[in-house]
Parts: sequence; C-alpha cells; structure tokens
Amino acid sequence: MIANMTEDQLLVLVIKYLKETKKSALQQILDELHPYDVAQLYKGLPEKHHHKFITFLTPDQIADLIQELDHDMQIEILHKLGIERSSKVMDLMDNDDLADLLNELSVDKIQEFLDVMKKEDSQHIQSLMSYPADTAGGLMTNQFVWIHADQTVRQAVDKLKEYAHFSENIYYLYVINEEKQLVGVVSYRDLLIADMHEVIEDLMFNRVVSVHVDDDQEEVAQTIERYDFIAVPVVDNRNKLLGIITVDDAIDVFIKEANEDIEKLSASGKDIDFHTKATTAAVRRLPWLVLLLFIGLVSGSIISGFEETLEQVVALIFFMPMIAGMTGNTGTQSLAVVVRGIVTTNVDRKTAFKLILRELRVGIIIGITCGVLISLIAFLWQDQNMYLGFVVGVSLLVTLIVGTLAGTIIPLLLYRFGVDPAVASGPLITTLNDIFSLMIYFGIATAFLHQLVSL
Amino acid sequence: MIANMTEDQLLVLVIKYLKETKKSALQQILDELHPYDVAQLYKGLPEKHHHKFITFLTPDQIADLIQELDHDMQIEILHKLGIERSSKVMDLMDNDDLADLLNELSVDKIQEFLDVMKKEDSQHIQSLMSYPADTAGGLMTNQFVWIHADQTVRQAVDKLKEYAHFSENIYYLYVINEEKQLVGVVSYRDLLIADMHEVIEDLMFNRVVSVHVDDDQEEVAQTIERYDFIAVPVVDNRNKLLGIITVDDAIDVFIKEANEDIEKLSASGKDIDFHTKATTAAVRRLPWLVLLLFIGLVSGSIISGFEETLEQVVALIFFMPMIAGMTGNTGTQSLAVVVRGIVTTNVDRKTAFKLILRELRVGIIIGITCGVLISLIAFLWQDQNMYLGFVVGVSLLVTLIVGTLAGTIIPLLLYRFGVDPAVASGPLITTLNDIFSLMIYFGIATAFLHQLVSL
Repeated sequence: MIANMTEDQLLVLVIKYLKETKKSALQQILDELHPYDVAQLYKGLPEKHHHKFITFLTPDQIADLIQELDHDMQIEILHKLGIERSSKVMDLMDNDDLADLLNELSVDKIQEFLDVMKKEDSQHIQSLMSYPADTAGGLMTNQFVWIHADQTVRQAVDKLKEYAHFSENIYYLYVINEEKQLVGVVSYRDLLIADMHEVIEDLMFNRVVSVHVDDDQEEVAQTIERYDFIAVPVVDNRNKLLGIITVDDAIDVFIKEANEDIEKLSASGKDIDFHTKATTAAVRRLPWLVLLLFIGLVSGSIISGFEETLEQVVALIFFMPMIAGMTGNTGTQSLAVVVRGIVTTNVDRKTAFKLILRELRVGIIIGITCGVLISLIAFLWQDQNMYLGFVVGVSLLVTLIVGTLAGTIIPLLLYRFGVDPAVASGPLITTLNDIFSLMIYFGIATAFLHQLVSL
Repeated sequence: MIANMTEDQLLVLVIKYLKETKKSALQQILDELHPYDVAQLYKGLPEKHHHKFITFLTPDQIADLIQELDHDMQIEILHKLGIERSSKVMDLMDNDDLADLLNELSVDKIQEFLDVMKKEDSQHIQSLMSYPADTAGGLMTNQFVWIHADQTVRQAVDKLKEYAHFSENIYYLYVINEEKQLVGVVSYRDLLIADMHEVIEDLMFNRVVSVHVDDDQEEVAQTIERYDFIAVPVVDNRNKLLGIITVDDAIDVFIKEANEDIEKLSASGKDIDFHTKATTAAVRRLPWLVLLLFIGLVSGSIISGFEETLEQVVALIFFMPMIAGMTGNTGTQSLAVVVRGIVTTNVDRKTAFKLILRELRVGIIIGITCGVLISLIAFLWQDQNMYLGFVVGVSLLVTLIVGTLAGTIIPLLLYRFGVDPAVASGPLITTLNDIFSLMIYFGIATAFLHQLVSL
C-alpha cells in the first residue's frame, strides 16, 4: 500500500497513526521501510511525537534507527528510553556503531550502561573502545559468522539461519581453525550453489586477504576498494580473527578522508559544517589564521628591507600582488596533485624523484609562458620601460619555478617524515611562497636598480 | 601452498613457470588469487613475459584481469589477443567496464569488435554506450538476476545456480512483473534461510529503492551510501528494470568526486596525476594561471591608483601582503566549508541564509581578534605610530569580514545558478579577495592620510 507514497504522505500518515495510537498500523508501515527512511521520518516528526514514536518501536527497530542518527539525537533517544531499555537496544546495535556512540558519553555514564548490558556484549564493547577510532580495530564489528573447515555446507547453512538476525548485511562466511586463526573464506553464493554435504574445506578460498587490527582506516578502505570486497576480516599478530569491516564503513572512511584533505588544504579547521556554531567555527579557524598573520608579517619585513629600492622605483609595487599571488597559485596546484596522488599511490624515493623532476619541467614551461607575457604587459603599461619588463618577467619565471617546486617538495618531505602532507595546506604554501617570491622579486630588482632608475 | 607467499616470491615463481611452460602449475596459483592480485602480477612481470602469460589464461581470467588494468594496458592485451579472442573475452566482461573500454577506441575499431561479439551482448553494449558516463546509465551493468513474484524459492535458487558465473558479486535478486517493471527485491540471505517452496512474493521487500537511468552518478553514490546497499537497481520512466549499480562503483564515484573537488578548489586542472607528462600537466594548468595573472594585475592597478598615498606613508606597503593574504586565507576556509557541505546537505534558501549569517558572525569574531592583534603589532613595530596601528587594525577587521562573506556567498551563488561551486577555487577567491582587501586598506589609509602623515 505504501509502496508508492512520497515521504511527506508517509509522514502525515505516521502522525495520524501516532495520534490515534494505532501501533499495529504503524508497524505495518515500518516493516516496509529501510532504517534510513525510518530515520528521515523521525527527523521529520514534530518533537512532541518523538516519545510516542519510540515507544511504538521494537528494540530491534530502535537499534536500526539509532544507527542512522547523529550523536545528539542518539543521546536524546537513550534518555527517553532510560538505562534498562537503552541497554537492551544497545545489545542489538552493531558493535562498531555502539562503541562510537559510547565514546561520546562520560565515563560514569558508559559504566552505567555497560553494567546493565549482557556480560558478553559489554566485554566486547570495552575491547572495541580500546582501539583508536581511526584504525581497523575501531571500525570492526563482531557481527560475523565463522565455521570450521571440516564442517559441511548443511552445517554452515544451519549456522547462518541461527544467526540470521545479525547476518543481514554480511555476505561471507569465515573459516577458522581450533586456535581461532583465519584459514579461509566462503561466500553465500558458493554455499547456495554447492551441494549440501560438501565439506567447507573443498569450497573455501585459502589465500584470504585480511587487515591487521592496528592498520590505519585509510589502508582498510583501500583494501576493500582494490578487491571490490563487501567485507574484509580483521586479524591480530597471530592471524586470529577478531572481527570484520564492511564496505559501508569503507565508504564513510573515503568521505571522511576526502573532507579532511580539503579541511587541511584550506586550513579551514577540523569538523566545521553547516550546523557548527559561529563561536566554535571561529575558534577552530583562528589558530591557523593567527599563525598565517605572523608569517604574513615576514613578507612585510622583507619589503621594508628593500624600502630604498621601492622608493626609487614605485612601479615595482604594482606588480607585487600579481607575482606573490601567482607563486602561491602554482604552489597550490602542485600541492593538490601531491595530496591526491598519495591517496592511491605508494610514493617511494624513485616516484618522488620523478615527480619533482616533472614538476620542475612544469614550472619551467609555465614560468616561461607567464614570464614572457608579463614582460610584454609591463613594457607596454609602464611607458615602454624595457628594464622593468625584463625584471618583472625574469622574476615571475624564477618565482613560478620556485613556487611549483615548493608546492611539490614540502608535502613530499612531510609525507617522508610521517606527517600528513595535507597539513601543508594551500594557505601555508601560499604564505610561504609570498615570502620566497618577494625576496626573489626585490632581489632581482635591486640588482638591476641602476638600469631601472636610469630610464 | 602459496597462501603465505609474498608478492615478490609469487612473481619469481610465476616467471619460473612461464619459462618452463608449466601451464597447469601456473593455473593452480591463479586459482588462489583475486583479480587485483593477478593484475599486480601482470604489472610486475617483465614485458617479454606478458604475451605468454596471457596465452596461459582462460578467457574468464583475462576478462577479470583486464577489468583491473588501466586503458593503455587493456588495449595492449586486446592487441595481443586479436579480434576473435578479444570478443570472446569481452563477452565475459562486466558490461559497464566494457562500455568504458570501448569508449576509448576509435569508431571503426568498436564496430570491428561488436561485429564479432554475440549479438545479444553487442546490442546491450551499444545501448550502454549511449548513456553519458557520469549518469546511472553509464555506471550500470546488466549482470543481475531477476525472477517473477509467483515463483518459488527453489526456482530462484535454480536460476541463481544457472547464472552463477556472473552472479559472483551480486547479492540481491530482483523481482519483476510481466512488463519487466521492478516490483520487489530479495536478498541471498533471505533465500538461504527460507523454505524451498515458499513463494517469492511472500519474502520480497516491496518498497524497492531504485535510481533513474538519467540520475547523476553523485546521486546514485549517495543513495548507496545512505542505505548501506551492496547494489541499487536502475529503472526508466516506466519503472522498467534496466540494470544494477554495485557498491564498488559507488566507491569509485566518491573518490572521483572528491578528487574533482580538490582539483577545482586548487585550480590545478583536470586529471593530473603522478604519471601525467610535464607538457600535458603544464597545458592543463596554464589557463587558470593566465586568467589569475590578469586578475592579479587589477590589484596592481588599484595600488597604482593610490600611488600618492603610498609615497607619503611607505610603511603602509609593509602590511599589504599580510592583509591581502589573510583575506584570501579566511575566504579559502569559508569556501571549503561550503563546497564540502554541499556534498551531504541539500542547500535551500533558508540554509543558505543561515550559513551566511553564521559566517558573518565568524568574520566579525576573527576580524576583531586579528584586528586588535595587528594594531598592537603595527603600533610597536612602526615607532609607536598610533594612527598606523588604527588604520591597519580597522582595515584587517573589515577585510576579514568581507573576505569571509565572499568565500561563502560566491560559491553559494554559483550553486544557486547550477554551476559547481568548487570552480570558485581557492586561487580565484584568493585573487578576488586580494582586490577587495587592497581597495579597503588603501581606501581607509587615504581617508586618514592627514593623521598618518602628521606624525
């Protein structure tokens, strides 16, 4: 019935059922909805209906719903449920989502919840929470199904049926030995087309690709992407199977890492989105700005060192913003190429060297092009002063080469020393290139001061 | 045996088998490898072994391998295979990958391949190639399994067994009616735990989430991400099922879109990676640089308009790079927040208005902080000139507010008019903010020229 209704029509119907306390009619709707759709409904409901809506849901449905909401709304729901019902819901949540949720709460509150939860679950949650959030351990869930190599397909299928309630999003069956070490993997498809008395060992794939529990989340996501996996198993040093990470987590990692790259490239500060308060956003943005302010003053003091040159040839100032700006622009371009290249390529010494050489060539090509162009413009604009054109053109040539190399070498050096190269940020490269470009420009101008003034 | 070998050890073994023409030994290795690993092997092999390696593979294995390689290597393999064997391999490739591959070839060459392919496949490929690559139609494959609602689980399983060779990466079974319209979906897990004579209609999920064949790839990827899908069905205007898009394609879209955002934000030009030739990279980067060069000259002509003011108070120049730089930096920060926010949020008029107000407040807070700071510095540095400190501080306050707003409003306006806001790019915002900041700074300085000079 609801198959063709729009979101708004659904919302109206849900509100009607809530007002009339028609629990079973509401349940019929919810049966046909994905957790994401239920979450959209919940967000669309007026606040006053939230409580009743929650009370109409089963713990399973609440667990699904809560995983789709942001932290504030999650906490709100836990509050509405109370400790007792909350812990029942928590038992049903994906363990990785639950660990994330608990990480937002105070230590006392966490303990309160853990005390009421099933002992097995609470132990598992605590071990999950001990892994850093941005590693394989922080992403993994224990909601997977394992089996031994000597069991049959029928036994595997029976086990799957038993665990069906949480194997909904799981598409592989992992094979472990007596020491819980990962020895193989079988897909649901393989089970489906196999004969019921075949032995798992004969079906399974031996060379299992896994990630280590301490691996960085970016490596995990890359593994899933390369192999087009739906899930990847997580093991410890002894190859013991600890959990699995599913492809939806990999997608979240890719989005998060891209956002972080852009945050850093623009020095825009951590975690600012459309809903961040103005004061919070300002506080997060200020550290970089204040640092850049001081670096910017270095440019000023360089200029003041060349005061004499400037007083004699005021026209030099007119080209200053252009030269400084262009050096910053080419540096930003190179930086972006390096930062994104690192996402998909392993950079060894040889690759780095080749890249620097390439960028040197790029710098020379754009330097010559822009240098010749600006020489002509300067010559025509400033009363056909040949020397001014020459000084501005040569300066731009040199600064573009230096700027291109700085935008390449600085992030590569950071990467070499284990620092995320995106912290080199567009604004930082731009500000540094300001300094380089002014020194080069005024240096060259001072060297030719005699010729510049004599005209 | 090979389960614990490193990539290098494997490579040595493969070369040995190739030299000794041990086809079956090589096949035993390949059986245990993922297509990604086989591709890594192929890339690692010396050129001279490529041909023999290919001849040792089955068409199925070549189809898997070819999908993991870049276009140059794909074409190389097709060349080695010849038309006849190539078309056999093409019949076995995922249709979306094949359409991408053919798009790289000349029209004549495409026709040559299509002529030798199975008629059914060649027709399907041609229809796929008619969809733009960045839409749902360009991403979808026809390798899915469908069934009618009145069939039983046993019939479904039989059909799956029959199509097992291409249902390897597919985890849902789609239910269609007589008009091929999509009416439901069943997961493999549901089939596995269901009874063999249950009817599909009773198991299936009615409210199927699908995407339209003309939808933008970004919308498709968002749908898969929101619902944590492994695959999403593609339909036409009449809800006829045309194909499916799998989660690995969604991941590729997210990576591509993030790279494009960064390319545009840094004005670094399309498709430059570590392997792009220097001349190509330079040609792709130059258009933006030349444009920015001319805009940079506008800054110069603004300064030349204030030549008189500058000649009287040379110290004003010392603060110029800092003020222009800071305005650019805050603009870049705001821009990044807008560009990334748009990826996950729908921006309506109300959201835009709220965001602009927020950024105004941010601008005021950082403007006051940095303005007071620079006033003190200017006062202490420039012989305790109170008016200079005042002029520099007030200018920075005003330019930071304007710069923040420019970095917010310009991308929002572009978005409003259907242009990708990332084209506003860091360098462009920075260069525009240079111009704003110089006009404000020298404007204020000129207004207080009398006081500045009298000290």
